[in-house]
Amino acid sequence: MPDPDSLGVVRSSLARFEAPFRFRSGRTIERFDLAYETYGRLNAARSNAVLVCHALNASHHVAGLDEAGNTGWWDNMVGPGKPLDTRRFFVVGVNNLGGCFGSTGPRDANPQTGRPYGADFPVVTVEDWVEAQALLADHLGIARFAAVMGGSLGAMQALQWAIAHPERVRHALVFASTPKLSAQNIAFNEVARQAIVTDPEFHGGHYYAHGVVPTRGLRVARMIGHITYLSDDVMAEKFGRDLRDGLNFGYGTEFQIESYLRHQGEKFSTYFDANTYLLITKALDYFDPAAACGGNLKQALASAAGVGFLVVSFTTDWRFSPARSREIVAALTANRARVSYAEIDAPHGHDEFLLEDARYHALVRAYYERIAAEVQA
Amino acid sequence: MPDPDSLGVVRSSLARFEAPFRFRSGRTIERFDLAYETYGRLNAARSNAVLVCHALNASHHVAGLDEAGNTGWWDNMVGPGKPLDTRRFFVVGVNNLGGCFGSTGPRDANPQTGRPYGADFPVVTVEDWVEAQALLADHLGIARFAAVMGGSLGAMQALQWAIAHPERVRHALVFASTPKLSAQNIAFNEVARQAIVTDPEFHGGHYYAHGVVPTRGLRVARMIGHITYLSDDVMAEKFGRDLRDGLNFGYGTEFQIESYLRHQGEKFSTYFDANTYLLITKALDYFDPAAACGGNLKQALASAAGVGFLVVSFTTDWRFSPARSREIVAALTANRARVSYAEIDAPHGHDEFLLEDARYHALVRAYYERIAAEVQA
Repeated sequence: MPDPDSLGVVRSSLARFEAPFRFRSGRTIERFDLAYETYGRLNAARSNAVLVCHALNASHHVAGLDEAGNTGWWDNMVGPGKPLDTRRFFVVGVNNLGGCFGSTGPRDANPQTGRPYGADFPVVTVEDWVEAQALLADHLGIARFAAVMGGSLGAMQALQWAIAHPERVRHALVFASTPKLSAQNIAFNEVARQAIVTDPEFHGGHYYAHGVVPTRGLRVARMIGHITYLSDDVMAEKFGRDLRDGLNFGYGTEFQIESYLRHQGEKFSTYFDANTYLLITKALDYFDPAAACGGNLKQALASAAGVGFLVVSFTTDWRFSPARSREIVAALTANRARVSYAEIDAPHGHDEFLLEDARYHALVRAYYERIAAEVQA
Repeated sequence: MPDPDSLGVVRSSLARFEAPFRFRSGRTIERFDLAYETYGRLNAARSNAVLVCHALNASHHVAGLDEAGNTGWWDNMVGPGKPLDTRRFFVVGVNNLGGCFGSTGPRDANPQTGRPYGADFPVVTVEDWVEAQALLADHLGIARFAAVMGGSLGAMQALQWAIAHPERVRHALVFASTPKLSAQNIAFNEVARQAIVTDPEFHGGHYYAHGVVPTRGLRVARMIGHITYLSDDVMAEKFGRDLRDGLNFGYGTEFQIESYLRHQGEKFSTYFDANTYLLITKALDYFDPAAACGGNLKQALASAAGVGFLVVSFTTDWRFSPARSREIVAALTANRARVSYAEIDAPHGHDEFLLEDARYHALVRAYYERIAAEVQA
């Protein structure tokens, strides 16, 4: 029986941009592609488009099944009858520039050398991603999004859309986010980067030419990440101090949490590109819109005052705690922006934004109903 | 001018034990040495001895200056006129079995093969360390310690002394500790271990024979550790998002926190043995005295009811939070043990137990004055 709430099989597309793209760093690339998926139909007024931005390891495959049968990373949120209802909205998912799922990134050939960019791919920022997404919107004929939505790093993109292009976005949905990384957040990213760049198979980022992959570094990087995505409580509940087969007084897998982390690291290292991982951690570290205003977040968000906001945080998120979301809310409120804010008491930590939490989903659903009324979707 | 509060230059000694030592795992080694230092004088009644147990990367060099001019790791706590006053107490510091600062460990030759033990060194536990320390106490003619003191992993040893040898310890001073590691604590240890064992220069733990050291893995392991030792707040205060020389849009050191962590990792990798690091993380993971009593900590601590306890935790310690110390206190109190407990509102996180916090030191000083009166030190 087909699931009536599922999009079924979806197809990805590639948009080609033949003009040079200038990064925030000042560097340029001559041309680039963006892989994307769309679900639902753009209405005649072109007013019902929603951009879904991805976080660290995700892609343009947001919902439905791809040709290999993989379910999209936010399928519980996006689809027919889901909180973001594809029967009413035209949803766009895009793999960000520098990614490894079809958009131009470090694995692709540098037209100037004919060899993969590798470590020479320009360092990307959230600002760069939003500018590239704006070009995709032009390509799709979308002058203004009904909403831009994301969690974590995806939420930073939604925030940046509201800052840089307030006239092109009615609403920004900002989940499990922060206006900038803390020293501790940067520290975790730096350890992950060091694990990758010191892997002998990294070869200064040009491992493609050697036919190898810095698997060990990627595994350790992913394991570190996973610890920060889960709450201490949920780890205790899911794994506790449970053993697989009793103590073995050796370095095999003894505790269930070890088994879980090794599996996550192993899986990740088979599909994710190490150079992309490095780029994305840098984009996280660099994001700090208030920096250009001497640290004044209210001033940084002044341009976004006309955008509607739904900000959601999760009580057990220790990576980007509710206090960080409240900083965003306070700065928006000081600008008299329309802000709805919810702090969801939920157990799963940072990863909660990806999960099917009833209160969270009900909130997002209600917010989209309001947007649908505005745009007559 | 010599510092009147310093011990000046101290010398280390080596105790040789020629009988086989049986580990909790069931494995044995034929003989072993323990490196130790002592400060102050054992009184005629032999009642004023205090054992100081070390945590992860420290050693028997607790206080004073060693011959190379290095200050002991707890010099602010131990010395003439310090909270643990060496004019009154006879203080013993010992490098634990499996260590890399003079006690028998993985770098030493296995008498059965003539080659370094390497990864074949038996996995050690807190229980094993305490039994080896008890042999050292016999060697020094100490039937009963006035106190056993430690922070973090050192505190687990103090707790284990009280459980296993309550007749040999009057007081246990237990700082920044936990009755067992959480899944998240184990997860951090596991990532550190994976960084080490997947370093190609680890050679299955037999890197000595190859004339190399798994430097990269050790560096990453130490960086991960450092994140968990510091509070988010103190990282924010010390480093924040400060940059060394502005954004460089590359992978050099940009943020001060990156520079700090790289330096810590680098320094550690030059002096610490990777196999010892693995052993110590396992000892941490395994410690769980309640496990033998079906998880009942009160029952596990019943034998310790006659020992006096000073338990101290630090509010910003997110590695072993005050809640973990309160579990110990509750179980001791349920056994009607004499317990003093303090939760110190201090900014530095787990590392605070090593720092010169005025309230913390005043508390420890007062507690030792009480002990001194009991033992007429």
